[in-house]
Amino acid sequence: MLATIIHGERDVRLEEVPDPVLSTGGDAIVRVVAACVCGSDLWPYRGVTPTASPRRIGHEFVGVVEEVGPDVRTIAVGDFVIAPFYDCDMTCVNCKNGVSTSCLHGGWWGAEDQLGGFADGGQGQKVRVPHADGSLVATPEYPRPELIPSLLTLSDVMGTGHHAAVSAGVTEGSTVVVVGDGAVGLCAVLASARLGASRIVAMSRHESRQALAREFGATDIVAERGDAGVAAVKELFDGIGPDCVLEAVGTKESMDQAIRSARPGGMVGYVGVPNGGAELPIRALFSSNVGVNGGVAPVRNYVEELLQDVWSGAIEPGKVFDLELPLTDIAEAYAAMDERRAIKTLVRP
Amino acid sequence: MLATIIHGERDVRLEEVPDPVLSTGGDAIVRVVAACVCGSDLWPYRGVTPTASPRRIGHEFVGVVEEVGPDVRTIAVGDFVIAPFYDCDMTCVNCKNGVSTSCLHGGWWGAEDQLGGFADGGQGQKVRVPHADGSLVATPEYPRPELIPSLLTLSDVMGTGHHAAVSAGVTEGSTVVVVGDGAVGLCAVLASARLGASRIVAMSRHESRQALAREFGATDIVAERGDAGVAAVKELFDGIGPDCVLEAVGTKESMDQAIRSARPGGMVGYVGVPNGGAELPIRALFSSNVGVNGGVAPVRNYVEELLQDVWSGAIEPGKVFDLELPLTDIAEAYAAMDERRAIKTLVRP
Repeated sequence: MLATIIHGERDVRLEEVPDPVLSTGGDAIVRVVAACVCGSDLWPYRGVTPTASPRRIGHEFVGVVEEVGPDVRTIAVGDFVIAPFYDCDMTCVNCKNGVSTSCLHGGWWGAEDQLGGFADGGQGQKVRVPHADGSLVATPEYPRPELIPSLLTLSDVMGTGHHAAVSAGVTEGSTVVVVGDGAVGLCAVLASARLGASRIVAMSRHESRQALAREFGATDIVAERGDAGVAAVKELFDGIGPDCVLEAVGTKESMDQAIRSARPGGMVGYVGVPNGGAELPIRALFSSNVGVNGGVAPVRNYVEELLQDVWSGAIEPGKVFDLELPLTDIAEAYAAMDERRAIKTLVRP
Repeated sequence: MLATIIHGERDVRLEEVPDPVLSTGGDAIVRVVAACVCGSDLWPYRGVTPTASPRRIGHEFVGVVEEVGPDVRTIAVGDFVIAPFYDCDMTCVNCKNGVSTSCLHGGWWGAEDQLGGFADGGQGQKVRVPHADGSLVATPEYPRPELIPSLLTLSDVMGTGHHAAVSAGVTEGSTVVVVGDGAVGLCAVLASARLGASRIVAMSRHESRQALAREFGATDIVAERGDAGVAAVKELFDGIGPDCVLEAVGTKESMDQAIRSARPGGMVGYVGVPNGGAELPIRALFSSNVGVNGGVAPVRNYVEELLQDVWSGAIEPGKVFDLELPLTDIAEAYAAMDERRAIKTLVRP
């Protein structure tokens, strides 16, 4: 089969690799119908995190189950399934506590040391899923084609935006500011609207992203950053600030922006993968009673809830995909996101 | 009148000072019935935070209202009142949001620049309270003498322990670890039990504090610290850790202990005044989805709720006072806490 391999900085290639083989009894082989490139894939692509040796890449995919091991109970051959950006069993105590990213037996796509051997990356034709009953959620039936992009976002970005909102305690009537206008930030806007936020400010300097933020439910846009950004946000909320700030970037600057924007007693829900040496300024948090909650999003725990609204058409997070390419154009899929020509690229094997 | 003045390291003196005078219309003069020494008073006492020039000190007191300004509505002369460790109006947006420590018009006892002029410290015979209707809560009637220590804890330590528990989301059935066995840590144990925690581990190496922790509802004691402390805590919770960790110290070591002890997806509620250069390790928080919430406790917002249980005798947080002295022995009141001969000292003018 064909799968994407990253060789180094700005060097991703689609190459012939061995087909996956069932090995653990509880695993499944999924033929990928749609996959995509993640903002976090850009760290190795840009060389910010070095690639020591060529490896599989990609961790978001939906597809059709082709084979299942003898111990698989809930997933069947022919099912259309959504996979989270990691493997998990959904039976361990952490999964049951709602934190499937800390599954005691799970792992990461593309890693070398997964249960039952090598785990495939998501940007390929097929993926072996070690814990099929845990990781995969089957849709009620084979989806209409226009639903597939939105279903794919449940693999990562929509669940991650939702996690930011849940972590910040967004609920009916909350006031919200979203820092970051990438796919996750935009999904955080949508998630906040879905949870009933009364006012949602999207911080964005890009017209197309501002437009999508508004479509997703943003009531206000703030284009400023830094001190000017904090001042603009405070002004929108009587000088006090919003209840909840959702951080979806991961830099020191964005976290700073988030913490300083929240009202006293407010909460920052963060999902941006921390990049650089940013630690949290405890004195500023202490004096204002601003809390910080979030982390690597346990999207698997949210799939059923969000799937209902995607299936019904109530939400269309798939609109974050503004470029669609065949898997053979994977290099261009990365380049378009790297150069910010695309918010998020969907690829089809 | 007599009031305590700190002159420098290990130098607190009771001195004659001018009687307070009403000045803002909304203020009241309270004759102090009981006051106490706070763990945070020990920072200037030990010289950890320097004292530039002699100043009033003390911020926890209960007493009887002697005079009120013409604009005071809810507080009357003769009322027995509880004051929080700060002044607040309870009408601004932050007070209404539950964060009266961020009151837009409030201030701190002993500070020079309070509304209407100088604000007295709590360790004296009288205190002018700038926002009497906001800051003060009157008890239903003059309390029986044995209730006074517990009422005094609503001024700070019991409300602060409660804030740690609330910030960490302690609720019916929660599993809790408390880091710190000072008065606040012990009150955090009591607050957790009151909120229905199913298991409460107190981290303490001192026999008398362990005993009081058990009396307050601790189900387990862990005497180890650092790596051994984390391992001991994890072992008590199937290797995973508790839902909530309450941090009541304020050092880098204690916060580290707290963060590392929590289960994935758990929450650290912290109220220890941050001391030293400790920042929060965002990568560790991110990977485990452990949140951090809390800060300078808005105890005024909790007085009514906690007062009911103190008044009925359901809780007796006043047991944290294991030494009682006349105000004239204020130097010994500090020394006993400094040398850890006392958990907390109550003084009576």
